[in-house]
Amino acid sequence: MNRMFDYVEKAAFHRPDAPSLTFLEESFTWAQTRSRCRAMAAKLHELGVGSGDLVAHLGFNSHYLFELYFIPSLVGAACVPLNYRLSKAEMVEVLADCDPMVLIADAAHMDMARAVAAQVESITVVMGAGEMALRPGELSYDDIANSAAKPLDPTLAGQDDDTIILLYTGGTTGHPKGVELSHNNVMSNALGTLAPYGFKENETHLVSGPLFHAGSGSRVYSAVVLGAHTVIMQRFDPGEMLRLVPAYGVNVAQTVPTMLVMILDHPDFADSDLSSLRMMTYGAAPIPEALLSRVMKEMPQIRFAQAFGMTEASPVLTVLTAEYHTLEGPFAGKMTSVGRICAHVDLRIADAAGNALPTGEVGEIIARGPNVARGYRGNPEQTALSFRGGWYHTGDSGYLNADGFLYVVGRIKDMIISGGENVYPIEVENVISLHPAIAEVAVIGVPDDKWGEAVQAVVVLKPAANVSAQEIIEHARARIAHYKCPRGVTFTIKSLPLTPINKVDKIALRKAYAEGAL
Amino acid sequence: MNRMFDYVEKAAFHRPDAPSLTFLEESFTWAQTRSRCRAMAAKLHELGVGSGDLVAHLGFNSHYLFELYFIPSLVGAACVPLNYRLSKAEMVEVLADCDPMVLIADAAHMDMARAVAAQVESITVVMGAGEMALRPGELSYDDIANSAAKPLDPTLAGQDDDTIILLYTGGTTGHPKGVELSHNNVMSNALGTLAPYGFKENETHLVSGPLFHAGSGSRVYSAVVLGAHTVIMQRFDPGEMLRLVPAYGVNVAQTVPTMLVMILDHPDFADSDLSSLRMMTYGAAPIPEALLSRVMKEMPQIRFAQAFGMTEASPVLTVLTAEYHTLEGPFAGKMTSVGRICAHVDLRIADAAGNALPTGEVGEIIARGPNVARGYRGNPEQTALSFRGGWYHTGDSGYLNADGFLYVVGRIKDMIISGGENVYPIEVENVISLHPAIAEVAVIGVPDDKWGEAVQAVVVLKPAANVSAQEIIEHARARIAHYKCPRGVTFTIKSLPLTPINKVDKIALRKAYAEGAL
Repeated sequence: MNRMFDYVEKAAFHRPDAPSLTFLEESFTWAQTRSRCRAMAAKLHELGVGSGDLVAHLGFNSHYLFELYFIPSLVGAACVPLNYRLSKAEMVEVLADCDPMVLIADAAHMDMARAVAAQVESITVVMGAGEMALRPGELSYDDIANSAAKPLDPTLAGQDDDTIILLYTGGTTGHPKGVELSHNNVMSNALGTLAPYGFKENETHLVSGPLFHAGSGSRVYSAVVLGAHTVIMQRFDPGEMLRLVPAYGVNVAQTVPTMLVMILDHPDFADSDLSSLRMMTYGAAPIPEALLSRVMKEMPQIRFAQAFGMTEASPVLTVLTAEYHTLEGPFAGKMTSVGRICAHVDLRIADAAGNALPTGEVGEIIARGPNVARGYRGNPEQTALSFRGGWYHTGDSGYLNADGFLYVVGRIKDMIISGGENVYPIEVENVISLHPAIAEVAVIGVPDDKWGEAVQAVVVLKPAANVSAQEIIEHARARIAHYKCPRGVTFTIKSLPLTPINKVDKIALRKAYAEGAL
Repeated sequence: MNRMFDYVEKAAFHRPDAPSLTFLEESFTWAQTRSRCRAMAAKLHELGVGSGDLVAHLGFNSHYLFELYFIPSLVGAACVPLNYRLSKAEMVEVLADCDPMVLIADAAHMDMARAVAAQVESITVVMGAGEMALRPGELSYDDIANSAAKPLDPTLAGQDDDTIILLYTGGTTGHPKGVELSHNNVMSNALGTLAPYGFKENETHLVSGPLFHAGSGSRVYSAVVLGAHTVIMQRFDPGEMLRLVPAYGVNVAQTVPTMLVMILDHPDFADSDLSSLRMMTYGAAPIPEALLSRVMKEMPQIRFAQAFGMTEASPVLTVLTAEYHTLEGPFAGKMTSVGRICAHVDLRIADAAGNALPTGEVGEIIARGPNVARGYRGNPEQTALSFRGGWYHTGDSGYLNADGFLYVVGRIKDMIISGGENVYPIEVENVISLHPAIAEVAVIGVPDDKWGEAVQAVVVLKPAANVSAQEIIEHARARIAHYKCPRGVTFTIKSLPLTPINKVDKIALRKAYAEGAL
């Protein structure tokens, strides 16, 4: 048994009146969550949804999406949470890729859902989640969820290895890829991260990141395994977080370092009682030493854990545990690493031919484990490529040190080869961003007759700041090898183009550079 | 990927020169363990061992048996570690039940192995593990393991859901039952117990219990997932343990409360440096308060964790974590419970019809989870009975309190029904054993015309002690309900009959009582 709804059943049996989740001041108990999920699943079965089928969701974070992390699995189907930031064309592309039968939308996205459903043949049912005027043929999620659940044949729930959630990724590589995560995958992530995160039973977790991503979405499964109470934010807002933590006694919160700065700088910070909050987990970027110092002074009870991973790994591969978040003692100096390989995961550094590299050498990070997806839905070519030889090839480059700590240096695809030397843009970007005049920086490779590629920095200056290209290059030369330093600097007054998940869009940037459009 | 040898590969890749295991002063590195396992697996393949086949082991604890926890799985087969305490007839019965192809024995059990192999048709190869004179046709384990490994087709290793180990159980219920544990089962136990046990990476573990049991055997899989160094004792000996802990810097040891007393009472205790030992895990019986007090005074650095489970659960169901091993504060008073349900497990208390009972009510402990076996090999009837409705029926009775702590009260089959009331022998035994004259006690139900069954105590007195039956009955009446108190007391000078796993053999005892043979 790894079927995740069994853990909803467990929580609802042992602690029926304990809170399962809270969203916009509305709280539910585990008994209510069980009942709502069962009722919705029975309706899906009535609608003909079954083994291998999909139910898509379009909307902000909500209790509906939390419930949908489980509901389709009760009839052997899976949920597809859509990124609401996608354009209509992108949504249609994703939905045409996976052919869901049902599309569920919140009030803010219902019009988009209708427009999209009209273009995707497989969608036969549109449901509204929340209060809104429905059109003929559309169903109300709440009407169904609040009705008495009809008994459902337990054998419909399928097997541990069936897909429970399909999460689309794609980032900067073009065509979206639907990552098939099974019960076994998400369970091993939930179980394998308990110890390194230092999670405890029956605590209260705050989820502020988007539930259409594995980073926050995986926490739904962690919460159910722990019997935790999840407080869901529609979208991250520092003032709202300062209100929610004392209101619900939040013990664990997900964050990224930038959010932490927003919290500390918020006018309500000094008057907020954050004493219940004991743990913050973060990812995406290392926590700067100055920020850690500030947190240690202003929120001394907080411990940190940093995770590194991606959707294909359900998502965690490594965790930098709490004891390494320190500025002194034998554990100091590890904060620029993403920590050690989790017990359930294996991870290697590989060269282009797939051979594992020794300690200290930079190469592609590859991983395997019970948390690693079996592949991309309906995409055997990309699956065969990314999962070749039984290892998921992350596309990230990094190295392991002698103590087993992983350091991530950048994206393989962003790597610049200049005069035969490998240059990782992130290293150059980190150095340039230290210059006081720089607001934003991205480093790309541009065609060069002599060197193959040349390192080019694209920078946005801070308001009223002034610096020459030569000064920036000299700033870099004082800190890193010459071959890594920019040969040219482009100044732009526009913000750098971002992908839907807020990473600099290097493809768009290289294109704009080539077209002289910066 | 949940295939356990992949974690040997992981440890051998990342820490090739770190110690994997030590046995009788001989230490191996992870690279050596990998090489030995691969070489043996290649030989098994050559011998025709493949998917679904079995390799049996007969012998004391050793590095051979540690290796065999992985080796057959490399060709899709499984290991059967035999209980060396069984009689020849019992061994033949077990082996005829599972039909292994290969039997591997240590020097102390080689003659028995030859005798048994002659009677079990399926066994075509006998191997000697260790130094001994071999007969024609017999193979030397070490000669094979020390040879260079031939490459083995990785697809032979089979799937995550294949059986990796077959552990025989039977205890007091007659015909032995082979519990099929899959990679998924043993992995979820290893992963799910990391947090409640408080295990850390790369420590040194001492295994002193028999590796033919799930209790100690499961620690082989915990160790490989943690990259731990396992120090294996051939059999438990307190003086040897006092020597091994400082010699190898043991951090974690398995024990039972009786062993702990033997350690504290040992003449070498005062001079032994046990400072590396930070955690002791135990099972089988609660730790008495007086013993905990003594340990807290004499070994203040030690923390405890108690586990409850059985082979069918790979084996852990609940853990009483370190913070509840205290005599004061809000966590005091939990030491007679076996702790809370692990995150990966669900557990209920059921009545005879299988209905879950409310908090506080006594019934049969039933459990499900990814750690729960799919059943007994070649025994669909017993599998259907014990695993009915998707839940493993443990045969143990107990109750859950309002905080979710499990209290075990005895074996369902040992339960006495006297005048319509349920009496659990263990409760009566615990009370009688408090009497200063009693050395051993067992409580059984005996036929009674009026009450159906009557409670009968069988006691062995301490040397030179003297007490009447009436005094024992009054001692019990002062402490527990009258209907639970013995109606008769049998005095015997023989020690009580034990099962091969050192529990009082109630079947033999009832028989001896009926025959007047006590």
